Amino acid sequence: MGWLIGLDWGSSSLRAMLFDSEGGVHETRHRAWGIRQLPQGGFEAALSSICAGWPACPVLAAGMVGSRQGWHEAPYVDTPADVHALAARLVTVAAADGRRIHIVPGVRDGAGPNVMRGEETQLVGALDVQPRIAEGTPLVLPGTHSKWVQSHRGRITGFTTMMTGELYGLLCKHSILRASLPDTSAAAPGHESFNDGVLAARASGASGVLTRLFSARTLMLDGKLDAAAVPDYLSGLLIGEEWRAALAAGWLDRGEIPVLIGDEALCLRYRRAAALFDLPDPAWIADAAARGLWRIARVAGLAVDRTPPVPMELPG
Amino acid sequence: MGWLIGLDWGSSSLRAMLFDSEGGVHETRHRAWGIRQLPQGGFEAALSSICAGWPACPVLAAGMVGSRQGWHEAPYVDTPADVHALAARLVTVAAADGRRIHIVPGVRDGAGPNVMRGEETQLVGALDVQPRIAEGTPLVLPGTHSKWVQSHRGRITGFTTMMTGELYGLLCKHSILRASLPDTSAAAPGHESFNDGVLAARASGASGVLTRLFSARTLMLDGKLDAAAVPDYLSGLLIGEEWRAALAAGWLDRGEIPVLIGDEALCLRYRRAAALFDLPDPAWIADAAARGLWRIARVAGLAVDRTPPVPMELPG
Repeated sequence: MGWLIGLDWGSSSLRAMLFDSEGGVHETRHRAWGIRQLPQGGFEAALSSICAGWPACPVLAAGMVGSRQGWHEAPYVDTPADVHALAARLVTVAAADGRRIHIVPGVRDGAGPNVMRGEETQLVGALDVQPRIAEGTPLVLPGTHSKWVQSHRGRITGFTTMMTGELYGLLCKHSILRASLPDTSAAAPGHESFNDGVLAARASGASGVLTRLFSARTLMLDGKLDAAAVPDYLSGLLIGEEWRAALAAGWLDRGEIPVLIGDEALCLRYRRAAALFDLPDPAWIADAAARGLWRIARVAGLAVDRTPPVPMELPG
Repeated sequence: MGWLIGLDWGSSSLRAMLFDSEGGVHETRHRAWGIRQLPQGGFEAALSSICAGWPACPVLAAGMVGSRQGWHEAPYVDTPADVHALAARLVTVAAADGRRIHIVPGVRDGAGPNVMRGEETQLVGALDVQPRIAEGTPLVLPGTHSKWVQSHRGRITGFTTMMTGELYGLLCKHSILRASLPDTSAAAPGHESFNDGVLAARASGASGVLTRLFSARTLMLDGKLDAAAVPDYLSGLLIGEEWRAALAAGWLDRGEIPVLIGDEALCLRYRRAAALFDLPDPAWIADAAARGLWRIARVAGLAVDRTPPVPMELPG
């Protein structure tokens, strides 16, 4: 196996990983070049710049880069979908600098309907790391648009979306609850306020967390919630709502141990919320995107060049 | 009874009504001068301008004008609260032009906690129009922050808030769902899409509407929802969620006929949604704010001057 460049290219950021011939991540680079805030020169310039000095190896990209608003649309693969279905449906673009970029398709679940882009690659990685995940175990990918996924024998069979991260951002940035927020973001993490939010979501029962959202303002007006702690309280309300809704919808049974896939700090919040719902501590898988990109590339037969890598652009 | 000026002064608009000596509304004026977008000169200038040419009679104001961010804070009256409690706690401000402005306090419900400003005046008006509203009938005031109110013998005994209108605005203006929206607002009301949204909220059951929010995007991507109809679908989802949550929380029993208080077009949406939940058609009370202002003024002993009104500022 030769070297590979993997791109995790979403709406708000771009992460590039250079894999060595064993699939180890040799170097990682981050830029704020999400597909909605590209540098001058667009996709081409962003790619050239972030890969500067890296070898002339294949590039595999996952995420919103393959959406209708991305570099090139990679049509959704329908559920049930596994690594082979994804690898067979890569869309290839030739960049001006000579690199070939292969884009992983997203996955569409006809029921709902529901769609994902980027999470399918993390799921491939997670199922590669832990192939023995028990059948039916819910896989949870927290984020802007959290995904709750069912899998069966390594295939994504169904999923749904909660706009948790996006709602959190909207409420903190644009809503009346924002009036409560101090100008500077609080440095101290508000564990207690987060917990209060989770418990309020749990207590909302079948009526749901939208019946409690306004309490982020009224508790503050009442002097029971510090203005600086409003974001943590909101975070608790909305993450708590995911656990509440998951139990109510049957995405998760009490006693089942779900698997969290994603960023450590965010997954830690989901674990704390699960504890407040008296749920068993979820398992956690990190760096699933890198592992997924490598696995899809291998199945697709990319990165087969065995000659030593040569940098495309020499520094200076 | 003498003449009276009533102000319905909220976050985003100002409405002034000149009442004749019988409580009839002689003239109404609207301006976009909510307390967050005042004209140069602030509250004083807004008041002088909107009352230009009107008699030197008492002014009674309700709404966010009495909040901490308003002209002068009128501290909340706790539940249970009736017209006498409100009339006894008016806060009076002397304007530079010589007018005296009496501000109606908001109401606070310790359980929750929850607060309202402006709705208490509409409730006084509604209970004045229909004093025989059955005990326990839920009173619903749709809006930016919808209120679901319980009353007992003409008193506001408890209430809760759903941020329905504000969430709708945030999602249409700032969220990823906005990407779907055409530049021009659709002229044709999307009854069918609204209904689809209501039914999706109902079908969400105990899991709640946040499990369905993303469908506003995926149905559009799937070609099942016209981009121009996304706002109506969202409106249906969120108004449907109010009925769903109200039933789940026990604010409303099936078979009970709630009373809607507010704007006709918005109340019509709530009535259509109720029908899709197989609920009886709600009653509807309009112009409750005007009636409430008049009633509070009467109980407070304002507008007692029996001499003919004299304009404060003559035209020209």
